[in-house]
Parts: sequence; structure tokens; C-alpha cells
Amino acid sequence: MAERIFGHMPGYPEGSLFEDRAELRESGVHRPIQAGISGSQTEGAESIVLSGGYEDDADDGDVIVYTGQGGRDQLTGQQVYDQPFSRGNRALALSKQNGLPVRVVRGSNHDSPHSPPHGYSYDGLYTVEEYWHEPGRSGFEVWRFRLAKIPERVTIGQVVREEPAGYSVPRRREMWVSRIVRDSAQAAKIKALYKHRCQMCGTRLECPAGPYSEAAHIRPLGAPHDGPDTEDNILCLCPNHHVLFDNGAISIADDLSLIGADQGDLTVRRGHNINRRHLAYHREHLVVFASFESEALT
Amino acid sequence: MAERIFGHMPGYPEGSLFEDRAELRESGVHRPIQAGISGSQTEGAESIVLSGGYEDDADDGDVIVYTGQGGRDQLTGQQVYDQPFSRGNRALALSKQNGLPVRVVRGSNHDSPHSPPHGYSYDGLYTVEEYWHEPGRSGFEVWRFRLAKIPERVTIGQVVREEPAGYSVPRRREMWVSRIVRDSAQAAKIKALYKHRCQMCGTRLECPAGPYSEAAHIRPLGAPHDGPDTEDNILCLCPNHHVLFDNGAISIADDLSLIGADQGDLTVRRGHNINRRHLAYHREHLVVFASFESEALT
Repeated sequence: MAERIFGHMPGYPEGSLFEDRAELRESGVHRPIQAGISGSQTEGAESIVLSGGYEDDADDGDVIVYTGQGGRDQLTGQQVYDQPFSRGNRALALSKQNGLPVRVVRGSNHDSPHSPPHGYSYDGLYTVEEYWHEPGRSGFEVWRFRLAKIPERVTIGQVVREEPAGYSVPRRREMWVSRIVRDSAQAAKIKALYKHRCQMCGTRLECPAGPYSEAAHIRPLGAPHDGPDTEDNILCLCPNHHVLFDNGAISIADDLSLIGADQGDLTVRRGHNINRRHLAYHREHLVVFASFESEALT
Repeated sequence: MAERIFGHMPGYPEGSLFEDRAELRESGVHRPIQAGISGSQTEGAESIVLSGGYEDDADDGDVIVYTGQGGRDQLTGQQVYDQPFSRGNRALALSKQNGLPVRVVRGSNHDSPHSPPHGYSYDGLYTVEEYWHEPGRSGFEVWRFRLAKIPERVTIGQVVREEPAGYSVPRRREMWVSRIVRDSAQAAKIKALYKHRCQMCGTRLECPAGPYSEAAHIRPLGAPHDGPDTEDNILCLCPNHHVLFDNGAISIADDLSLIGADQGDLTVRRGHNINRRHLAYHREHLVVFASFESEALT
């Protein structure tokens, strides 16, 4: 298989139209002829197609909530298993983790005002902002990925330089994508309460302008989680533990002991009442359970 | 002094015009009557005015390189000392560190096509993307801050709710600002070479989708540093050491020993040739030397 190309496909600007999946494949914009996700578990996902195959997709134009793959009966298309955290789903998770851009293609059979009247349209680059799992309409767990359009201004830094020949010479590419950082009076208050010490490991980063820490939301802000920006939903973490927590490698039990990548207890100061419902939400939707990692479920 | 307001000032949308500094002060958009930077070392900077006072400002509309304060002779306005890392300069550095938005005001005496014909205009919210020091035209060191306009789309999350009364009740506010994350084939290669282990501390963050690390550029990308996106300018770091390195708390000597916040040596694998000129650039421009922290220099 040819090398994966992340970012725009040279020669096919945003808005390019394709008659069918064969033409899409030919262009390289989306190579699999059937699968909705093109990618690998070790490199990330390069493109997806929205084509009405899943019951649960939501499409707001600039923001898409995309349902992962797997768990369906081949004949009926019904969801009959939990979706596994593997293949395309894991590829999209890796794209989120590494900040890789994903090409989004919409098919005419995708039920949205943004779909083309017929065939397929290439609709530009998106970042995977977040992923989580929840019961789908069938009752089985599905993976959900929130994708947000990358404004063209931000992708100005992208450069694709073609190398002279051959599959073995990697193409050089460069990209810039944006990550959202939130800070609020509530966040600042929690960071000050802990004097910028991580509640998981006690680390405090001493920078010339002052100590540095990050405010982590237990139940994430924004749709569909709609976690509140309140003190009972905010932790003061070092960047390392923030990454582990947001990526579902570590979570917190109701007794405030850590689950997953680290041992020990969360440090909690008097006056910081952590909402147990938010902790439960993190455990139920954001942690990747061992059972999801089994290929046997596919 | 009244509480600092970060973000838009209610009642004064972007594009608001002001006759003079007294009117600006009255509005709260920029409160000091003389100083170009409004802020404190412990809270960050809330607003700046571009008014032609400094020789070295650059203004590209959406991107501004702003020169810090201090080190000038009161009578002649000439730069006669190195600028200290204190007061307004340190406030802007803290705004960078905490991702706070800065209100930007341009005066008619600021030499730029973006300046108003007379008086002052409020030109919206910017983030401090970066800061460094370098010799100014006078030969003395000045602090420079690169500010980038926050697109309105990104600030949709901002909410200002007025509390009923009094200075003692903090106003609630919420904001979202964007941070740039870069990844490229070169970066991916370095991260793979170290198997995502931090070159400073050996940490590797194990996330469900795979190990996580960050690519740090020694000499930063983008104007004015124009560091290259090449392997000899990239380090594989954990997020904590990336923050320390980018904020000038830690640097690297030519013998690859660490300087500043941590002891020990940088781990370097065969085949990774780190460019000593880029290390020197980081030491010369991005580290905050102890001498800069002295108030005595002002």
C-alpha cells in the first residue's frame, strides 16, 4: 500500500467532486472502496467518508460527530456488538492524540444540508478534537469522534513538496493545527488553590514568569458532554497528567484513588468539592476499558 | 484598583473609537494613562496600546511583534539599559503562559496601515504566542512579544456575566483561546527514534491509542526566529519538559548538559545530530537570565 498522505491531496482542493467511490479511490482523497475510515492503528487516520451508513452521525458543517466502525451485522447493518477500540476507531484516536488533520468527504446519501446532490465532495481538513464512547441507538456501545474544521488561515503553514520518485522516498509535509486551551476565573481559582501543584503527582513547573499548571475539566466542556466550567468539575494537573487524563489513560474512583496509568490518590484540598457524577461520567465515557481493546469483539 | 477584566470589555466591541487616553481609561479598555501595558506580574496583562513609542514594533494586522517596556531614558526616550523581565514585560509573559487574551489598542501615532486616522481604536483580542529577547536598534536587549489575533469563531465560548454589585464580587468569565500544535514528518521521525521517551527525563506517556510525546523545536518556527523544521532542530520531550523548554526555564549547553530547572544530560541517540547553533539561539534568546529578573535594572 502506498504511503499515507495527511493533509490536502495535491491536485484536489476543497470542493472537489467525485462521481463514485472508484473515482475517490483513484484520486487518493479516500482510498478504501468500502470502509468509512482510511488509516492504521500505528499512523493515524487520513480520511473519512460520511455516507449515511451509521445511524448516529451528526453534522453541523464545521463540527461533525462521527460514529466509529465495527460491531454491525454484515447482512442487516444492525449494531449487534459493542464497537471495539481497534482499526479505524483507534486510527482516529491516534489522529486526535498526534494532532493530525483528517480529510472529510461527504456522500449524497449522507443526510445533511452539507451533502452534495450526487456523488461525493471533498470538504476539507478537520481535527479530531475528542473521542468517547456511549450507547448507540441499538444499546451497544459505539465510539464517537468530534471533528472540527481547520480554518484555512491556520493551515497556511502547510507545505507539500513532492519528492522526485518512488514509494520509498517519503514526501515531506508540514502542518499546523490548533488545539483549544481554556482558562476561566474558576480554573484560575483552582490552580491558585493548589499553588499550581498537580493533584496527581505533586509536580509544579517553575517557569520564569511564574509557576505553570493546567486546568483539566473532568466532564469535558462543549457538546455533547456539556460539562460545566465550575470548580467541582476542574482539576489542577501538570501537562503530563492532563494528557493522560484527557486521553483516557487514567481516571478517578469515587474514593478519589487513581485508576489506570498511575497508583495513589488524588490530592484534594479543603474547599474543593469534586462532583462524583462528573468522575462517573469520565469513567463511563472517556476511559478505554481493556475489553474494548480486544480484537475478538470485531 | 478595580479588578482586571480579561477579554472584551462589555459595551466596547471591536472597532470602538476613542478620542484620547482619558476616554480609553474611562472605558476600561486600557486603564493606564501613560503605560503601554496594563497588567501585573501575578495576574497577567489585560491590554496594550501601540502608539509609536518604541522604535522596534512591527505590525502586520493579525500578527504584531510588540516591544516590551523599560530601559529608556525618561527625557530622551532613548534605550539606555537592557529591558528588565519585570512589570509589564513579565505580565505579558504570564499572559502567554496562561493563555490569556490581551486587548489591543492602536493609536493614530503608531506607524501602520492598521492605525486609526486620529485618536485610538480598540482592535480586538490577541494571544501572546511567544516572547524572547534580542538587541534592539540601540544595542541594548529588549523583550519582544509576538501577538496573534484570536479569530472570532474561537472566542464564541466567551461569556461575560455581570454580577450584581461591588468590587469584591469577581465577575464570572469564560474564554477559549487557541494554541498551535505542530507535527510534521520530521517531528514524527524524531518521536519514533526515541520511541516517545522524553530526552530530558525518560518519561513516556502510555495512552490507549499509543505512546504520547511532543516534538519541540529548539529554535522556534515562524517569524522572526525562522527555525527550520528539520531533525537537527527537533527534540522529543514529554509535555512537562516541553513547557519548561518553551518558556525558557530550561536550556541545553553545547556539551548537551541541561541548564536551569533540571540537572543531567540530554539523551541523544545515534543518528540524531543536534545543531549547536540552534542550541545557542535558544540560550541567547529564549532563556530568562537571572540578571533580567532584577528590578534594579529598571
